[in-house]
Amino acid sequence: MLQRYLPILGWLKTYNRDTLTSDLVAALIVTVMLIPQSLAYALLAGLPAEVGLYASILPLVAYALFGTSRTLAVGPVAVVSLMTAAAVGNLSLPDSEAYLAAAVALAFISGLLLIAMGVLRLGLIANFLSHPVISAFITASGLIIAASQLKHLLGVDAGGDNLLQILLALGNRIDEANLPTLLIGAGAVIFLFWVRSRLKPLLVRAGLRPRLADLLAKAGPVLAMAVTTLVTAGAGLTEQGVRVVGEVPQGLPGLGLPPLDAELWQQLFVSALLISLVGFVESVSVAQTLAAKRRQRICPNQELIGLGSANIASSVSGGFPVTGGFSRSVVNFDAGAETPAAGAFTAVGIALVTLLLTPLIEFLPKATLAATIIVAVLSLVDFGALKRTWSYSRSDFTAMLATLVLTLVEGVEVGIIAGVGLSLLLYLYRTSKPHSALVGKLPGSEHFRNIDRHAVETDPRILTLRVDESLYFANARFLEDRIEALIANNPSVEHLVLMCPAVNLIDASALESLEAINQRLSDSGVRFHLSEVKGPVMDALRHSSLLDELTGQVFLSQYDAWEALRREAASAAVTGTPEATPVPHREQSPAS
Amino acid sequence: MLQRYLPILGWLKTYNRDTLTSDLVAALIVTVMLIPQSLAYALLAGLPAEVGLYASILPLVAYALFGTSRTLAVGPVAVVSLMTAAAVGNLSLPDSEAYLAAAVALAFISGLLLIAMGVLRLGLIANFLSHPVISAFITASGLIIAASQLKHLLGVDAGGDNLLQILLALGNRIDEANLPTLLIGAGAVIFLFWVRSRLKPLLVRAGLRPRLADLLAKAGPVLAMAVTTLVTAGAGLTEQGVRVVGEVPQGLPGLGLPPLDAELWQQLFVSALLISLVGFVESVSVAQTLAAKRRQRICPNQELIGLGSANIASSVSGGFPVTGGFSRSVVNFDAGAETPAAGAFTAVGIALVTLLLTPLIEFLPKATLAATIIVAVLSLVDFGALKRTWSYSRSDFTAMLATLVLTLVEGVEVGIIAGVGLSLLLYLYRTSKPHSALVGKLPGSEHFRNIDRHAVETDPRILTLRVDESLYFANARFLEDRIEALIANNPSVEHLVLMCPAVNLIDASALESLEAINQRLSDSGVRFHLSEVKGPVMDALRHSSLLDELTGQVFLSQYDAWEALRREAASAAVTGTPEATPVPHREQSPAS
Repeated sequence: MLQRYLPILGWLKTYNRDTLTSDLVAALIVTVMLIPQSLAYALLAGLPAEVGLYASILPLVAYALFGTSRTLAVGPVAVVSLMTAAAVGNLSLPDSEAYLAAAVALAFISGLLLIAMGVLRLGLIANFLSHPVISAFITASGLIIAASQLKHLLGVDAGGDNLLQILLALGNRIDEANLPTLLIGAGAVIFLFWVRSRLKPLLVRAGLRPRLADLLAKAGPVLAMAVTTLVTAGAGLTEQGVRVVGEVPQGLPGLGLPPLDAELWQQLFVSALLISLVGFVESVSVAQTLAAKRRQRICPNQELIGLGSANIASSVSGGFPVTGGFSRSVVNFDAGAETPAAGAFTAVGIALVTLLLTPLIEFLPKATLAATIIVAVLSLVDFGALKRTWSYSRSDFTAMLATLVLTLVEGVEVGIIAGVGLSLLLYLYRTSKPHSALVGKLPGSEHFRNIDRHAVETDPRILTLRVDESLYFANARFLEDRIEALIANNPSVEHLVLMCPAVNLIDASALESLEAINQRLSDSGVRFHLSEVKGPVMDALRHSSLLDELTGQVFLSQYDAWEALRREAASAAVTGTPEATPVPHREQSPAS
Repeated sequence: MLQRYLPILGWLKTYNRDTLTSDLVAALIVTVMLIPQSLAYALLAGLPAEVGLYASILPLVAYALFGTSRTLAVGPVAVVSLMTAAAVGNLSLPDSEAYLAAAVALAFISGLLLIAMGVLRLGLIANFLSHPVISAFITASGLIIAASQLKHLLGVDAGGDNLLQILLALGNRIDEANLPTLLIGAGAVIFLFWVRSRLKPLLVRAGLRPRLADLLAKAGPVLAMAVTTLVTAGAGLTEQGVRVVGEVPQGLPGLGLPPLDAELWQQLFVSALLISLVGFVESVSVAQTLAAKRRQRICPNQELIGLGSANIASSVSGGFPVTGGFSRSVVNFDAGAETPAAGAFTAVGIALVTLLLTPLIEFLPKATLAATIIVAVLSLVDFGALKRTWSYSRSDFTAMLATLVLTLVEGVEVGIIAGVGLSLLLYLYRTSKPHSALVGKLPGSEHFRNIDRHAVETDPRILTLRVDESLYFANARFLEDRIEALIANNPSVEHLVLMCPAVNLIDASALESLEAINQRLSDSGVRFHLSEVKGPVMDALRHSSLLDELTGQVFLSQYDAWEALRREAASAAVTGTPEATPVPHREQSPAS
């Protein structure tokens, strides 16, 4: 029990010198990668650079204690940072102090929500975010983030909540662009793209092992930071208008609770919920992918607690919302991390940087950080997913396109809420018109198939309708309409059989519809039968009065139904009594 | 085409003297029944009594032109009148003139929405209202309506938006009760209950035919009106505090458009949508039940147009929202109505009453109308449905109880919106944890059953998982978690087969989950197979890359999968190569 809530008790028992070495190497590499990312994502969230470092210390320790993934690397990530900027930016706060306090409170609320969902085992709430919606949302976020960073490359002031606003604001200010800033920024972008695509093959050709070459290439952003900082400081470029990070307070963050302001919490609640869900979904899919590679397991509900405590830890140490990051987790995994201790060691690395090296980043140009962000987020943009989804399912594509467009045009929160709502509506729409077919017997077999697709035997006195969907409120009326039409168009019918092999559920609405259908068919002189009802569905029906009221029978198989009703209809035709004597209900044996 | 939008063109062709006689008799009986109802429901909606008459003339003509039910009787009904009172009451309008104007506008907006839904063939929106939610909503509405009428029985002023408020307000004013009013009201209630339960058997015993006795009993409210009006007028009870309907303008209503006030329309929009949906659902289920008794059909999308034009007609003639009424449609049917012309004749009847008889209702006590309402709505209260639903499905019961409690405590709009939201969430929750089972082969057969329920053959190298639900975004993660756990707990597994006979849909989210599962299984050295995939699902999968990437095969039947994989695993064990050479994909033939 204790181990379930504190997974560290599981892996700590087998910790040894080998694991320690692996974890230390991975931690060193992730630290180098995390420095520019944490600074850059703080900038993206509209916060001072050091807040990014604060969000990369205690959260990693908390996750190491409570998380279930061996290799997930948590910290500030691009999409959550953008959502933080949108959430806090909406509040129109008086100054940057209030802005920071709100971001810190957002991490706290988000942490509480995640822990609450974990304790209540509500991880399934994240199911509401369908893959197409998440994918479109991330693509749109990537585009907005990249656009929002262009101002730093140009060295101008321009903002906006959506893509159009951002681009228009940039267009208005483009003549104020600062040339040295642009040179640094464009240079960094080109260098980082080159590192990403060309450096690794070059290093491999120079004789390095591919994995080492790959990891070295990840240090590109740090190199860009170092070079541009040196150039800026050396050439005194700040006097020519190059904006830099500026003086950063040295030392570790103080601990404390975020402002407990009821109105602020209320205003941030929905944003915190969205950030929690998006962060959780992203994090869990990375963690699951990496765990599977080593036949390990993660526990989604405990992951909620791990990510929740990471956010609480971030908040009490003056940081902003965090979650598991895709690229840095992959690096952590590739670098050989074996346990969450690697995350704790990374935390020590970032803490040392915060204590000792912050004076070095005073002259770090914001343009370099913007370049880091742009290169990182453009890999999130995936228009191919739109194309793949279009060819697979129009309905999913619709939800995807709506999420993409609304996120770009109306902003992140409207985009994701509309996407979730639309995907629910479309699912209900799909299931409200289920596939159904009149079936007949394939000659010489006991199989029943669609009369429109196969040459099958039928009987004008017996109609068999197969519905390929669970029966529930969204399609209960469909069934009533379908059967009403069938009976009106087939005046010679005496028996209607509903064939249920694909019916996994009959809810109370559908039950009432079936009772109404039974009653209406009885009024029309037609008997109503069921066939191939599944075990669990039959178990539920036994708690209703449908089986008592049913004018017909429940048949184990459709073939049984066909044989029995054919005999009955034939004998009724001979004796001239169209209504045969009621047959006692025969129920299907409980099948699993 | 024209006949689809004007169903009157269909039945008018065969209209003859017999049909005319039947329709005239039915119209006479429904007119007598409709007079007290229309006055009473106007009172319930907080409107002058004559507005109820106006809402019972043109709407009936419009429905006769555009409706598809032969016997539905439209007009003011209890639940919609309550919803009208709630919607217009929320606006805190300055005077009763503005209140009336808002009610008239509400009918217009509701009519436009219904027609729009009909033209766009969106009748399925009504599917969102599940039977348990509607049933609980109507029970709660019945209780609120009955409670809200008690003030008229007592002759005091007391109001409130929910049951508690109403009862508290009554409690505070009970010492102001007016004795003559109470005597009239209580007398009417007792008389009407007696008529409802005892009069018919008495008449039958006196020699009348049961159907005639039944129809005569329906005239009870008119008799109560006549007697109490005579007593009140004769004994001058108005001077003793008995409140009466008062002077009613004589003559037909003038025609005109409702106020085209954008702000008002916006405020009424959600209420109009809810009223439209509730009214439509109620009306369609009555119409469908009655149509089935004569093997007739109604067309739900054309019904939307019929009810929509009835509401527009009500609005332009100064009336409030209307829909098909349950009890009066049954009376219309039982009285022998054969075509919608019966409705048009009823309209003529009510028009004559409005022209000639309104002076007679000046001294009609409001207490008598309240008694009519109370006796009518208590038949809507159905606590038995709660019990039946409890024993059938806990999930549906939860939605039902929440709707009931929230409607009583928070009012009609909150109640129904919460009920709809909750029933959606509960459905997603149910399907997000679908029934699934590991299956094995029943010895000596080709059937595969749950290994926990049956003594079946299994193979430690082959796991077969059957999922009894469509795979979509709400349960995609469930599947990933389930398979992750299976593989982690069964280290000797080499093949995983997903058995899909109950999978009616695989959406884009589930497709990505299957791709991820395939990839993760491949990383763990396990091959992933599908079996018994349905034709339409297979058709869709062919538009994806899953079939190309799949490490295993798609088998037509689970038995094929078992035989092939057993052979393969056995030969791999002999030759010592655990990974057999890839087998070309074999796909299922398209089944309907």
